[in-house]
Amino acid sequence: MSHQKLSSDELKSILQFITTVARKAGDLILEGSEAIQTTSSQETGVNEKKNSVDLVTEYDVRVEELIQRELKEKYPNFKFIGEESYSAGKRDPLTDEPTFCVDPIDGTTNFVHGIPWVCVSMGLIYERRPVIGLIYNPFLNHLYTGIKGQGAHLSRNNGEPRKLPLSSLPKPLLSLNGAVIAVEWGSDRNAASIDAKSLSFSRLAGDPEKGVALGKMAHSLRSLGSGALNCALVAQGAVDIYWEIGSWPWDVCAGIVLVQEAGGVVTGSHRTLESTISTDQFGDVTEAVLTGRKYLLIRGISDSQGEAGKDIQKRLLKEFYETVVDVAPQYT
Amino acid sequence: MSHQKLSSDELKSILQFITTVARKAGDLILEGSEAIQTTSSQETGVNEKKNSVDLVTEYDVRVEELIQRELKEKYPNFKFIGEESYSAGKRDPLTDEPTFCVDPIDGTTNFVHGIPWVCVSMGLIYERRPVIGLIYNPFLNHLYTGIKGQGAHLSRNNGEPRKLPLSSLPKPLLSLNGAVIAVEWGSDRNAASIDAKSLSFSRLAGDPEKGVALGKMAHSLRSLGSGALNCALVAQGAVDIYWEIGSWPWDVCAGIVLVQEAGGVVTGSHRTLESTISTDQFGDVTEAVLTGRKYLLIRGISDSQGEAGKDIQKRLLKEFYETVVDVAPQYT
Repeated sequence: MSHQKLSSDELKSILQFITTVARKAGDLILEGSEAIQTTSSQETGVNEKKNSVDLVTEYDVRVEELIQRELKEKYPNFKFIGEESYSAGKRDPLTDEPTFCVDPIDGTTNFVHGIPWVCVSMGLIYERRPVIGLIYNPFLNHLYTGIKGQGAHLSRNNGEPRKLPLSSLPKPLLSLNGAVIAVEWGSDRNAASIDAKSLSFSRLAGDPEKGVALGKMAHSLRSLGSGALNCALVAQGAVDIYWEIGSWPWDVCAGIVLVQEAGGVVTGSHRTLESTISTDQFGDVTEAVLTGRKYLLIRGISDSQGEAGKDIQKRLLKEFYETVVDVAPQYT
Repeated sequence: MSHQKLSSDELKSILQFITTVARKAGDLILEGSEAIQTTSSQETGVNEKKNSVDLVTEYDVRVEELIQRELKEKYPNFKFIGEESYSAGKRDPLTDEPTFCVDPIDGTTNFVHGIPWVCVSMGLIYERRPVIGLIYNPFLNHLYTGIKGQGAHLSRNNGEPRKLPLSSLPKPLLSLNGAVIAVEWGSDRNAASIDAKSLSFSRLAGDPEKGVALGKMAHSLRSLGSGALNCALVAQGAVDIYWEIGSWPWDVCAGIVLVQEAGGVVTGSHRTLESTISTDQFGDVTEAVLTGRKYLLIRGISDSQGEAGKDIQKRLLKEFYETVVDVAPQYT
């Protein structure tokens, strides 16, 4: 059972290295976005749609190859999990070895259409837990980084990294009523998924005093189109809760580290929360949670009037899952 | 009926002036965002929530005062419409005079919570039609500008203004299936509004072949939290359609100019579209449309296989309104 041991200094040096890789990948994303957005049928003389799709594929592949090449060269013994290691429902089980879990372009639809809300998301799993997270939005030049046990930080426009959450104490949050909640419509578009999501979103947004059963009257719902950036915003304290069904480990691996290091909590499905909420396993992102494709993340919250922040998180997570409807993700 | 006449050069010079004002307002927004996000109960020793609300109000007022002061000093005879000129359902009717229609901070919830998707939105109405539009996101340093008859442009990071849409020809779009659609949950949270919106969104996202009645299987739905920036993205070509019920003229006035000048079409309610689609009034943003609080915007679309771009726009707008459920906005 012996495996490669990584010291906390080694984790730091890995983060430093992958930061340089992420910035290179970001440059390529910017170049690709420019090319995709300015393409037109007139310029190319061929079917524009096909051409634009080709460009998307081209840059997708180039960004992925760049990252894989650089990481493999520097860390030839590290494993990888990603889209390519999953096929038709099968995957290799996690080991204790250092394992990169990377989404080269998170927010692909935004990337394709030219909405500048796109990132590189790079995580490292070690001893079966996410331990390094990096999320980089090249359009905003926002770089989020975190190492397990060493905090999470945000550097904007190459400025000094600032500890997350940005508020020196996480802000209070006593109910879902005040919350900004990130949700996505995702790619599961069958009736069961769509009905579950729309009913859930209605309840989160709806006013219980104006006829919406189970309404929570959240401050706002956002669908920004990048799971990784949703996590980053939770770590930052800008989004209070992010709920997701259907994402993959590489969409959230990096974000999980950021959220945990910023005082937030990550849990999995309804059942995961229920079975762990009163135990020491609460907030433990095990292999089952990481690969379970159901995620619920809440930001750090300050103690308030005798109620500990952690208890408030538990109470809100519980209330959240009592409000929304569970549904099975599809394999798409 | 004589009123102040504005030449096309005067419109240019007005746009130039309000650009300097918008950049000052943007600096103040950045300063405010920093202050709001970093406040904590520990630092201030008082209830954090109250303090943060105070800061929001303070910066909201300061940005609005800055803009009003500068505009009134330079253009003392121009009128204004905005939140302050509307009260409890009453408003002054439009005149032919130049009238500023400004939202000092559009995307207030994002501003409050620290999501960097916020803008200054400045429109000028003249002879009862929006004629100048400026939308500035200080977080991204994206400046969108447009003048009726003179095109719309985007300058990123103080770069050379580029004509909108960014693609030299607007990209094709043959069905809602390929569309990225911006929608917002808004502030009307009664059962009628929430039910209408969630059913509408379900149909837009849902797969008709997987049980979703009237499903359009849109590429994606986005809820980004700023109506003005939604319009700007339509002008840019990054969002295909933006649908809104409940916004105010100052949320969309600037964006309307951008969209129209980028080859897009703006219409109002279901009834407006129905009564104008086969007439010369199609796409005319009259006073009734501008103040009607229901907006449907579609980007410029290229001709395709014998179908003119304008006919494709009409077909998609019609199909869109056959899909979504109309509901009356509340006066909030």
